[in-house]
Amino acid sequence: MINVGLYGATGYAGFETFKILRNHPKVKLKFATSESYAGQSLSEVYPVPWQIPLVNSNEADLSHLDAVFCCLPHAASMPTVLAAREAGVRVIDLSADFRLKSAAVYQHWYGITHSAPHLLSEATYGLPEINRGEIQEANLLANPGCYPTSVLLALYPLLKHYYLNLDAPIIADSKSGVSGAGRKPSLKTHFVEVNENLAPYNIGQKHRHTAEIVQTIEAWGGEGVQFIFSPHLVPISRGMLSTVYVSLAEDFTADQAQSLFIETYHNQPLVRVLPPGELATFAHTQHTNSCAISVTWVNPRQLIICASLDNLGKGAAGQAVQSFNLMFGVEETMAL
Amino acid sequence: MINVGLYGATGYAGFETFKILRNHPKVKLKFATSESYAGQSLSEVYPVPWQIPLVNSNEADLSHLDAVFCCLPHAASMPTVLAAREAGVRVIDLSADFRLKSAAVYQHWYGITHSAPHLLSEATYGLPEINRGEIQEANLLANPGCYPTSVLLALYPLLKHYYLNLDAPIIADSKSGVSGAGRKPSLKTHFVEVNENLAPYNIGQKHRHTAEIVQTIEAWGGEGVQFIFSPHLVPISRGMLSTVYVSLAEDFTADQAQSLFIETYHNQPLVRVLPPGELATFAHTQHTNSCAISVTWVNPRQLIICASLDNLGKGAAGQAVQSFNLMFGVEETMAL
Amino acid sequence: MINVGLYGATGYAGFETFKILRNHPKVKLKFATSESYAGQSLSEVYPVPWQIPLVNSNEADLSHLDAVFCCLPHAASMPTVLAAREAGVRVIDLSADFRLKSAAVYQHWYGITHSAPHLLSEATYGLPEINRGEIQEANLLANPGCYPTSVLLALYPLLKHYYLNLDAPIIADSKSGVSGAGRKPSLKTHFVEVNENLAPYNIGQKHRHTAEIVQTIEAWGGEGVQFIFSPHLVPISRGMLSTVYVSLAEDFTADQAQSLFIETYHNQPLVRVLPPGELATFAHTQHTNSCAISVTWVNPRQLIICASLDNLGKGAAGQAVQSFNLMFGVEETMAL
Amino acid sequence: MINVGLYGATGYAGFETFKILRNHPKVKLKFATSESYAGQSLSEVYPVPWQIPLVNSNEADLSHLDAVFCCLPHAASMPTVLAAREAGVRVIDLSADFRLKSAAVYQHWYGITHSAPHLLSEATYGLPEINRGEIQEANLLANPGCYPTSVLLALYPLLKHYYLNLDAPIIADSKSGVSGAGRKPSLKTHFVEVNENLAPYNIGQKHRHTAEIVQTIEAWGGEGVQFIFSPHLVPISRGMLSTVYVSLAEDFTADQAQSLFIETYHNQPLVRVLPPGELATFAHTQHTNSCAISVTWVNPRQLIICASLDNLGKGAAGQAVQSFNLMFGVEETMAL
Repeated sequence: MINVGLYGATGYAGFETFKILRNHPKVKLKFATSESYAGQSLSEVYPVPWQIPLVNSNEADLSHLDAVFCCLPHAASMPTVLAAREAGVRVIDLSADFRLKSAAVYQHWYGITHSAPHLLSEATYGLPEINRGEIQEANLLANPGCYPTSVLLALYPLLKHYYLNLDAPIIADSKSGVSGAGRKPSLKTHFVEVNENLAPYNIGQKHRHTAEIVQTIEAWGGEGVQFIFSPHLVPISRGMLSTVYVSLAEDFTADQAQSLFIETYHNQPLVRVLPPGELATFAHTQHTNSCAISVTWVNPRQLIICASLDNLGKGAAGQAVQSFNLMFGVEETMAL
Repeated sequence: MINVGLYGATGYAGFETFKILRNHPKVKLKFATSESYAGQSLSEVYPVPWQIPLVNSNEADLSHLDAVFCCLPHAASMPTVLAAREAGVRVIDLSADFRLKSAAVYQHWYGITHSAPHLLSEATYGLPEINRGEIQEANLLANPGCYPTSVLLALYPLLKHYYLNLDAPIIADSKSGVSGAGRKPSLKTHFVEVNENLAPYNIGQKHRHTAEIVQTIEAWGGEGVQFIFSPHLVPISRGMLSTVYVSLAEDFTADQAQSLFIETYHNQPLVRVLPPGELATFAHTQHTNSCAISVTWVNPRQLIICASLDNLGKGAAGQAVQSFNLMFGVEETMAL
Repeated sequence: MINVGLYGATGYAGFETFKILRNHPKVKLKFATSESYAGQSLSEVYPVPWQIPLVNSNEADLSHLDAVFCCLPHAASMPTVLAAREAGVRVIDLSADFRLKSAAVYQHWYGITHSAPHLLSEATYGLPEINRGEIQEANLLANPGCYPTSVLLALYPLLKHYYLNLDAPIIADSKSGVSGAGRKPSLKTHFVEVNENLAPYNIGQKHRHTAEIVQTIEAWGGEGVQFIFSPHLVPISRGMLSTVYVSLAEDFTADQAQSLFIETYHNQPLVRVLPPGELATFAHTQHTNSCAISVTWVNPRQLIICASLDNLGKGAAGQAVQSFNLMFGVEETMAL
Repeated sequence: MINVGLYGATGYAGFETFKILRNHPKVKLKFATSESYAGQSLSEVYPVPWQIPLVNSNEADLSHLDAVFCCLPHAASMPTVLAAREAGVRVIDLSADFRLKSAAVYQHWYGITHSAPHLLSEATYGLPEINRGEIQEANLLANPGCYPTSVLLALYPLLKHYYLNLDAPIIADSKSGVSGAGRKPSLKTHFVEVNENLAPYNIGQKHRHTAEIVQTIEAWGGEGVQFIFSPHLVPISRGMLSTVYVSLAEDFTADQAQSLFIETYHNQPLVRVLPPGELATFAHTQHTNSCAISVTWVNPRQLIICASLDNLGKGAAGQAVQSFNLMFGVEETMAL
């Protein structure tokens, strides 16, 4: 059995991680922390029957642990990850704190100084479909954000082969369910404000995930990319769809475009390329740990890629456990 | 023109009151207050184009005013109402602070000592369909809660004629939209917690509106009534339905029951008794200032009365303006 | 392995049954029928990757089968069940066709003559928490409706011990998600008609499930019961809550009431009695195969029982598979 | 008074038109037709108290009429419009039948032969902010679709001054509420299929509104435009947002872009350009007859224009009445 600790078990991503780990045949969960609900049981926080004690993070014992999942907010994650690494425990971090390679870029987007910059180079960005080998060796796994996962899986087959026309902008018009905004109450997530509404936010290069996406596109050969990212909040609890508009560097037929995606992903258990004519929707992936992708041919130089995932599944907890499985050498889709 | 001030313009009931007053041909709005947004414009708080300055309540000038609408939370309302009355201004109070006749009962349910108990006897409970005459003379109008309005309008025709069997409990199973819980963010109103959920709360005589309903039933001759009240929160922004189960003291046919309600309300412009076979739903009254009532005959001694209203319309702002119109001698439905 | 056929795989209950059977370690699914989509694959009907062929029911081969699940609409179910029974195959029928013991009562409520009345006495009404022993022996299992399951599980502990005051009516105010109305498009299930609305329907003893509930209450000793049933449609995809109001024949404390329910259900894996103070909501059981029950004490002679279940889980497919497991001697909660 | 007839009063757009006309001080409504509900009253079709008789369209009397609103589906509209024009009655047609200038293009997109092609040149496309003068003279007003209205109002200020770089595609990623799909039940509008889902449809130049938008862009000088249109269905009853991505032919600062839109629309009563930093959302225009537009600067050559409207208001009935008001010389916003 793999001995695991879970930090931040009562946020939406943390609770989703808990639910997956609970059914994981190789995991023994040693503790679950919560700052807000320490001393209570998980059954008092969510409408579930599980009498799991929630402890304060400073009561969490790192000895004899193999791994920790860190589901804390950004900034709060840094010291926890640092402590775990210093105790020799492998870390799967779901926050944004170790996704960016540059402490300066982190400071620019998150407005705080990184307190463990020496760990940034050690961190492995965890997109199993792309860098499975590195993940297997990772000690500090930076789990991608939900938006970046959807956009990057949509772009990878084209970027990998240098098929994109990088003189034209890549445009990602993304729609996210509300659980992506976290469980902390705010006017932005008040039912009456969200319900029957649909709202763009942080468009025009103001959303923090822009940095993470651009960093990865550039690492894949897309230096100098113009990436336009427009997130929208939709009145749905969970799910995400990114509608991605790309220009191609050479002519494609519809069949060629479809084949490219099929070939890239046909061996990937958690990415599904839909048949021609079927468009990816929230319903394709809600309550799953998969990503569904559709390829729409507009003309020989224009494609629309739709990528759908559950922001708490493949966009957070599901992908985190997928990488964990790789790190510990068990079946990649175990418990997923 | 009637010079009017509005306290608490940025809560849901306050904003709804603002919207009605804005279109009221006899009203000149002199100020709108907001504790949270003082110094800003209403267009910064809601997605509307109206550049209405919001002032702190201590900047509000009571001189030369004819009336104030007070849309503050309970407890916060008391000193504001007191000051207005001392300045000789007529008050329409939408809070719970002046609905109960007894300061002791108020203390029991709201957990605080009433700071203006001498005003309780002066206050008029504003159900225009029942006590229009008193309202015309009122100087301090206590606007009923949304739940009480729906339940009391459902019961009044039966209570008025002593047709209820008071040995059996009256049961009101009520369903409310989320705006009734106010605009202040909390986990209870978080989109993800409310959406796709339906939840009873404070059932078993724990909801504060119980006191207000029982007080009124007793005033209408229902002394010793057993009233069971079960509110439920439903994933809808606005609206309310109370399904009310009553036992009758004598046999009724379905036609007799229907006729009783028709006769009671046929001259009331803001209560609509639905034809036989049509049941009241949220859709009947959403975005209106009316109450819709359906009468379902179960057997000669059992009826089910469904009463629907918009919790912000007839359940709050609409009824408040209806009473205001009566108080100032203009057409009862003006601007409604 | 148990060889199983599935009739009506593309309705909501049928598809839910399919999803459970797909993960059932003891089941080999031999066919799945669909009248509307015969010749297509399940992946063309729902956004799932499963390439399961859908056949017309007259192509379904009953030989070498151990059981069939019949998820057809009422009336359509009768000939299919009859054929299966004549072929010696055990049947789990999710329709209403074999729930009522009297062909005359069936005709009264469903408006058609029962075509296999001789099977009515053979049929076992499948509430595993109540009649597990009979279910184990059943050859024709009539799976209860969603409303009846919620109401009957709420009432059983009280009826079993003759604690109810049957001179007073039992009132069940039930709220159901929309999937309970089936997948066939109609104005009643049009998004714009349902969304932001909540509507009572068939109240006043007009809903067909009344007969099924009354029949069972009477079988449990509640002869002459007055049962008032008020279903409401709510803008939620799946889930159900019944708020049940009962009068007691003797005085109870809150503790005694709670203990009665705990004792009755504490060994039942798929019924959960909530701790005092926690009320059953849709969220307690959505996407599960369990029922959650809360007991609220109003006074020594009045209780409110809230029972929540997923109308497609414990209210349909989940309970059907639970009974199937009992019929075939495997663990009761296998795949659930 | 202007004598008006209304064809198709029971669809969503027709009913919205009815509600506006009902409050219009200059309109006398002579008839309201419905194919599905002829012989019934409007109060039997919608939960409203209005006892308006619905007649079959062949009972509608065109004599002594000044105008008809035609809210029939495309194809059904053609003969009705023809008859009205032959009777000398001015027509406001909300269908797609007279929006395209070319009968061949109509046939291509709608799959049927146009039966009144001689009227196509007579028809005036009704965007009051753009062609108010023509509308005043119109006898046959083709009311634009909801998608085209949002996209064209977003593009007009840029196209008018030839500021767009037409070598790059214009991309409109549009999100629509469900009432845009009409009231006729279908699986596509079934609550359970739509709720908690968000789905692109007809993307890749397959949506019929593409033709209408391209025709207008070209008429405004955008010959040879590449227009990519991606509609998405969202689980909201009414509303629309188009997020429009454009490349500019010359450098703009953020201020210049904002000023361009302000200048273009500042005298338009039903178009509102939001202040910098505020993004257009569904909430800005729901239940209104206005369009709200926000301008987001990405870089000197890239803008994102968000345009929000109520698909039944400015996207259908509201704009139709706006044009009607112009046609009959009354205040443009009367009853709106």
